[in-house]
Amino acid sequence: MKAEQFQFCPSKTYSEISDLKIEPLKDRFFKIAWQRLDSLTKPRKSLGRLEEIAVQLVAIYENSMPEIKKKAVLVFASDHGVTEEGISAYPKEVTAQMVFNFLRGGAGINVLSRHAGADVVVIDIGTDYDFEKINGLISKKVVRGSRNMTKSPALSYEEAVKCIKTGIELVIEYHDRGYNLFATGEMGIGNTTPSSAVTAVLTGSNVEEVTGRGTGIDEKIFKRKIEVIKKSIEINKPDPSNPVEVLAKVGGPEIGACAGVVLGCASLKVPVVIDGFISSAGALIAYCLNPLVKHYIFASHNSIEVGHKRILEFMDLKPLFDLNLRLGEGTGAALAMTIIEAGVKIYREMATFEEAEVSQAKAD
Amino acid sequence: MKAEQFQFCPSKTYSEISDLKIEPLKDRFFKIAWQRLDSLTKPRKSLGRLEEIAVQLVAIYENSMPEIKKKAVLVFASDHGVTEEGISAYPKEVTAQMVFNFLRGGAGINVLSRHAGADVVVIDIGTDYDFEKINGLISKKVVRGSRNMTKSPALSYEEAVKCIKTGIELVIEYHDRGYNLFATGEMGIGNTTPSSAVTAVLTGSNVEEVTGRGTGIDEKIFKRKIEVIKKSIEINKPDPSNPVEVLAKVGGPEIGACAGVVLGCASLKVPVVIDGFISSAGALIAYCLNPLVKHYIFASHNSIEVGHKRILEFMDLKPLFDLNLRLGEGTGAALAMTIIEAGVKIYREMATFEEAEVSQAKAD
Repeated sequence: MKAEQFQFCPSKTYSEISDLKIEPLKDRFFKIAWQRLDSLTKPRKSLGRLEEIAVQLVAIYENSMPEIKKKAVLVFASDHGVTEEGISAYPKEVTAQMVFNFLRGGAGINVLSRHAGADVVVIDIGTDYDFEKINGLISKKVVRGSRNMTKSPALSYEEAVKCIKTGIELVIEYHDRGYNLFATGEMGIGNTTPSSAVTAVLTGSNVEEVTGRGTGIDEKIFKRKIEVIKKSIEINKPDPSNPVEVLAKVGGPEIGACAGVVLGCASLKVPVVIDGFISSAGALIAYCLNPLVKHYIFASHNSIEVGHKRILEFMDLKPLFDLNLRLGEGTGAALAMTIIEAGVKIYREMATFEEAEVSQAKAD
Repeated sequence: MKAEQFQFCPSKTYSEISDLKIEPLKDRFFKIAWQRLDSLTKPRKSLGRLEEIAVQLVAIYENSMPEIKKKAVLVFASDHGVTEEGISAYPKEVTAQMVFNFLRGGAGINVLSRHAGADVVVIDIGTDYDFEKINGLISKKVVRGSRNMTKSPALSYEEAVKCIKTGIELVIEYHDRGYNLFATGEMGIGNTTPSSAVTAVLTGSNVEEVTGRGTGIDEKIFKRKIEVIKKSIEINKPDPSNPVEVLAKVGGPEIGACAGVVLGCASLKVPVVIDGFISSAGALIAYCLNPLVKHYIFASHNSIEVGHKRILEFMDLKPLFDLNLRLGEGTGAALAMTIIEAGVKIYREMATFEEAEVSQAKAD
């Protein structure tokens, strides 16, 4: 399929996404939150970022006593035509094999989500596999694997929009079912390659600065990966000012869906935890569509992937921890949920100086 | 009370602590652990430090399928004579007030321990308060507040030994009751001052390099605090090669008890999570008594206190996270327990490539 076959017509489809109403956080909720935190039996701000988490949640939920109800990690699976170029350490069948692993509960994301008390929602957004009707898998297949982006755009513009919309719609659906903390996760052999391409274009970085070794490739494949990304950008010429076009030309289905989850959460005023490089590339697209989404995002961790670091810097987000994770799937985000919940509990459950009859600091 | 009144006689009491049998971790358990981790459905080492946690636990417990049973945070409360010198932002009554808060479940450590599924054990090791017989409080009072170390040693040598032994004995008791993951916590208005003194002496640092602002003191009090620490070291002249003497002369009861917990855990082959500056000063004493304890320690977080950082560097321990915490009580350690448990669960619960019928990396 040639690049010319796609019609890039932003006017037609762009507005459905960019018209989402996303509001900045309101100052008065920050004030309410800090007032309570300063009344709790601890020196002021001595619980550091746990307190900042609580403040952000008060402002996001617009609730002076925020409560995390149900938690969901949305894991989007997809294949990538660019794997034809031999840029991954794993064969492409692994995407579907891992979907089965997710459904049976044996993958890293299952273990860490159980640990965090979160539900794993597995979505086929673009795998090159027929799952038939299988219990627990949500079929939202937009494409049967993206196209090889060294030869044509990875997705048509309409497909890219559909991926984003799928993410938004899933958040709305699960929010209706009582979920109010979301995390983005993904599975897709080869997907650090489009993530690097998207990051290079949208942050204006050199490909070398934002390309890592994914699941663990050797020097030779690493060099090829960089060439493949450069070639993809060169032949597709994505317009950096149009994030949806960037997603379509050099991105991938799960990246688009992650962007949709971020947009959906921000529009519904619920927090979203982003995971590693691929999730963050999705968040970057959402951010470039509307920078206000940033206020609704918690960056979970700093992965080993250099491109991930670049995205977090670009959005000025500080991750909660750095445990050298590079698995993806949403694993870092699930673990971060336990820290975010700790922040809420501090806020809700600690006694005030008055309640506990504890003397305050002399200086206070 | 004058310094000369104390008899420092290492020969008499030292052996009871230093004779504890502490073994290095065994290579074969590392091999067993990595073999399993590499068989799980993820790229090798892609769960970074979570995998390293699992490996360390396999080696500590000497169990190829380690299990965390019951978790306890031991919170030692004590007062400090040096508060007479005006080195804290809080009045000294707060120590006892906070003990009541711990017992009612309203403090930060209660909230975070509940979050981690850990039990809080509150021990009076040296408060200047009569609690009478109060439900939930373990009375192990060695002194009624330490002495003002600018005028005499804070503790006698025998008292220092007794504090350490109390920590050891409590670990043995709770281990017998099924606990196999411990954390050190503390409460004591003024206790960053002796922690800085202990750190300066045992790491050979200048007082200025290891002194911070504790619960939040202004510039004037900060300068006084540094002078107080310098004076305490000057008049007491603790021998840096005798950690128990250092604890006695310029330390404090809860610091000694934390040292005992670390020694006790290492001798029983159970892991111990250390919290912030004061807990870590205790761990430093244990480490100087027997460097092998290091293998049994998990450093939870990097607090804002500069002395804490110095201790972690000295013991070459890398904390799990840095969330700008500076509350103490064991709060960072309790939160770290959730991450440590995540490491164990990954190890125990993830499916292997074979079980999940997932293809391995081409390079593997």
